[in-house]
Amino acid sequence: MNTYAQVFQGTAFTSQSPKEIKVLKDHLFCIDENGVIAKILAPIDIAYNDVLKEYENTDAFHRINEGTYILPGFIDLHVHAPQWIQAGTALDIPLNDWLNTYTFPTEAKFADVDFATKVYADVVDTLLANGTTTALYFATIHKEASIVLAKTCAEKGQRGLVGKVVMDDPEQTPSFYKDADTKTALADTEEFIVAVKELGKSTKQGVYPVVTPRFIPSCTDEALRGLGELAKKYDTHIQSHCSESDWAHGYVQERFGKNDAQALNDFGLLQDKSVMAHSNFLTDEDAQLFADTGSAIAHCPVSNAYFANSVIPIARFMAMGVEIGLGSDISGGFSPSLYDNTRQAVISSRMLEDGVDSSLPATTRGVPNSRITLNEAFYLVTAGGGESLSLPIGRLEVGFAWDAQMIDTRTANARLPIYEVDKKEIDIFEKIIYLARPENIREVWVQGEKVHTR
Amino acid sequence: MNTYAQVFQGTAFTSQSPKEIKVLKDHLFCIDENGVIAKILAPIDIAYNDVLKEYENTDAFHRINEGTYILPGFIDLHVHAPQWIQAGTALDIPLNDWLNTYTFPTEAKFADVDFATKVYADVVDTLLANGTTTALYFATIHKEASIVLAKTCAEKGQRGLVGKVVMDDPEQTPSFYKDADTKTALADTEEFIVAVKELGKSTKQGVYPVVTPRFIPSCTDEALRGLGELAKKYDTHIQSHCSESDWAHGYVQERFGKNDAQALNDFGLLQDKSVMAHSNFLTDEDAQLFADTGSAIAHCPVSNAYFANSVIPIARFMAMGVEIGLGSDISGGFSPSLYDNTRQAVISSRMLEDGVDSSLPATTRGVPNSRITLNEAFYLVTAGGGESLSLPIGRLEVGFAWDAQMIDTRTANARLPIYEVDKKEIDIFEKIIYLARPENIREVWVQGEKVHTR
Ligand SMILES: [Zn+2]
Ligand SMILES: [Zn+2]
Repeated sequence: MNTYAQVFQGTAFTSQSPKEIKVLKDHLFCIDENGVIAKILAPIDIAYNDVLKEYENTDAFHRINEGTYILPGFIDLHVHAPQWIQAGTALDIPLNDWLNTYTFPTEAKFADVDFATKVYADVVDTLLANGTTTALYFATIHKEASIVLAKTCAEKGQRGLVGKVVMDDPEQTPSFYKDADTKTALADTEEFIVAVKELGKSTKQGVYPVVTPRFIPSCTDEALRGLGELAKKYDTHIQSHCSESDWAHGYVQERFGKNDAQALNDFGLLQDKSVMAHSNFLTDEDAQLFADTGSAIAHCPVSNAYFANSVIPIARFMAMGVEIGLGSDISGGFSPSLYDNTRQAVISSRMLEDGVDSSLPATTRGVPNSRITLNEAFYLVTAGGGESLSLPIGRLEVGFAWDAQMIDTRTANARLPIYEVDKKEIDIFEKIIYLARPENIREVWVQGEKVHTR
Repeated sequence: MNTYAQVFQGTAFTSQSPKEIKVLKDHLFCIDENGVIAKILAPIDIAYNDVLKEYENTDAFHRINEGTYILPGFIDLHVHAPQWIQAGTALDIPLNDWLNTYTFPTEAKFADVDFATKVYADVVDTLLANGTTTALYFATIHKEASIVLAKTCAEKGQRGLVGKVVMDDPEQTPSFYKDADTKTALADTEEFIVAVKELGKSTKQGVYPVVTPRFIPSCTDEALRGLGELAKKYDTHIQSHCSESDWAHGYVQERFGKNDAQALNDFGLLQDKSVMAHSNFLTDEDAQLFADTGSAIAHCPVSNAYFANSVIPIARFMAMGVEIGLGSDISGGFSPSLYDNTRQAVISSRMLEDGVDSSLPATTRGVPNSRITLNEAFYLVTAGGGESLSLPIGRLEVGFAWDAQMIDTRTANARLPIYEVDKKEIDIFEKIIYLARPENIREVWVQGEKVHTR
């Protein structure tokens, strides 16, 4: 019997550090039966030729074509799965109006489990086709439909972290879309946690329940406290929205006389497995609280342009040691692609650094040292996402899951502009991140299983 | 003999005005032998059934499938064709360094006509596959290779407006990449104009020579003056860069004691068929000069995030009556897709309106009333581009060229999230603009000829 379940031979890119990309040229990636990277061999390693000889004529061997490159799968830290049906529409109004006029009616439809089943299959397929191997999902308030989303991830091979959304405050939630009451909200959450934990036991790549207060404005104190306790009792991930917009930030200040971060922490909702979406208006003190508790930021650059009234100072928060990854925030963000979000993360950071108002002098227009590089944005969408979720994913390293996407730079009709034979690999890396389309993503693997091909 | 060369039946979207989209549901589009829209019929029109009956069983008839929609072809007002080979790389340095370290050496390679032939074929194919039916190109300083670009457009059926670049100032241009001297620059330009005009006579969709001083910093006064005269003599289009970055804007101020716009106008370079890239730092007086002379702005939102140090106030300039279209600015902009640029135009305008620095109060963070809507961005990439070029393109209206792209919202692996049977067409329009990928673009037509299919 072979030592490895799969052996891949090809050139890969992975983060060495937030600023540096490691190029693994013509390496062998040896994957064990659990879908974990057991060994990585460079051509100069002594064992390289032995492993090659042992595997190259077996079914376990995959030689990656010339012109195709291996990237870690991307990690989406913030997706509202039900909102996929309205992606790309109604982006011209403020957050609070958008929620009440469009989004809550949309999410209310997921009381219908058949409808949810159909849409969630489409969402998971779409994200996989875009190279997203792990996703942290908001479902809806409906326990059953939320379990359907977890099952869909399990069946389609995506690593899904799924939350049944809690919205129990009758003053801040519409009558047609809210938990019946606080007690029901907590009981449904607990049943949801137990069911998804059970499902996770038989799911190779893992599915995880996530404690999910929508955001402070839609929850009572009692619900927030109860959710903190449930997360502790079951050792689950936690997700919510934090200090997203001027409005949301101001609401929490008004209600508690403190910032979102502090309020969430008081309810036991900031811990190592917490991921808070947006977090644009964190003060340095708030950010320090994130760093101290191990809470992560889901940076959603496309969505933020529509609803967050600002650009989050990612470079500053990275320097403070806060864990950060990227989120598509479907449908506040229109794009299911984390490539789009990686590009926008760079673009937005440059706009923060240079400023936007050409009538101001350059010296006062922007916020110096705010830009992040493409390498740093790539770190966020891969390794940073893994750190945020406290899971061994997002890197092509021994001990990490084999979550990978194979990018064909020579796809007909979508060939990347790579000309010179002696082109440096790092230039190819940049072209892939800036120019690849879903059709360049020929295969997607999660935990050693092929989950998408085209 | 039939009255029309082609008749298309389908649902189309086109701009009614900058703010409004016209939905032409199940209309007939009747195209004459010159590739011009001769008649558009709605189902309620009396002639509709007669035309349908006459054509529907002929080769001239094209029924657009359910789920597929017709858009006008997109118009790219600013593309550096040779820079396609470096698209997506080297975007981390300021404009002036980027030009000298990367871009001028890249463009110098196009002295090799064989290389140019190969690359330009790739550029034109790529833009067509992205739905760009008309492009205003910078080639290089090389007369012969620039003619190759015009020929490539002619052969592949794209409407190309092509400029041989002039860079004659020895102080501001590298020795390895400059016109030999001013006289040669002007003589080469004139020969180029004559050759492309000749080529245009036998090209159905039109190809056009464009007088192209790279930007003021790379040209002598004598060249600028001579180019203004050539444009007048041959009634050509004119293109250049204007007030792009703090550096470029400051350079012209230093040299002439006036802004780019005024200097360009003094040299006869602002007129009805002028298109100036970027133009971020135009004052209101400069913008008024654009409006008065009929000069247009090529707004390049992706590129501007990297090199323009600001967001151009498009809403303000639109309100002043300046003609504006969109440009990809390959490779200052990494993307060959005007869909990406349309999306970024909306995003950037929102960042200008809301501001970027979360440490400032909302009231002073941004520039009020700066946002543009998706409809307005669509206007820029279609009708606005046509106005900018003073050509009958960019609208699905009688008298306009049949430049169209057929968008299949149901492409396998790239299905757009359109669910409800009673979905409003305008929602589908928004989803197409925000979510369509090149693979959704199934056919592209220019001047009544099919130039791309997949
Ligand atoms: Zn969200
Ligand atoms: Zn340019």
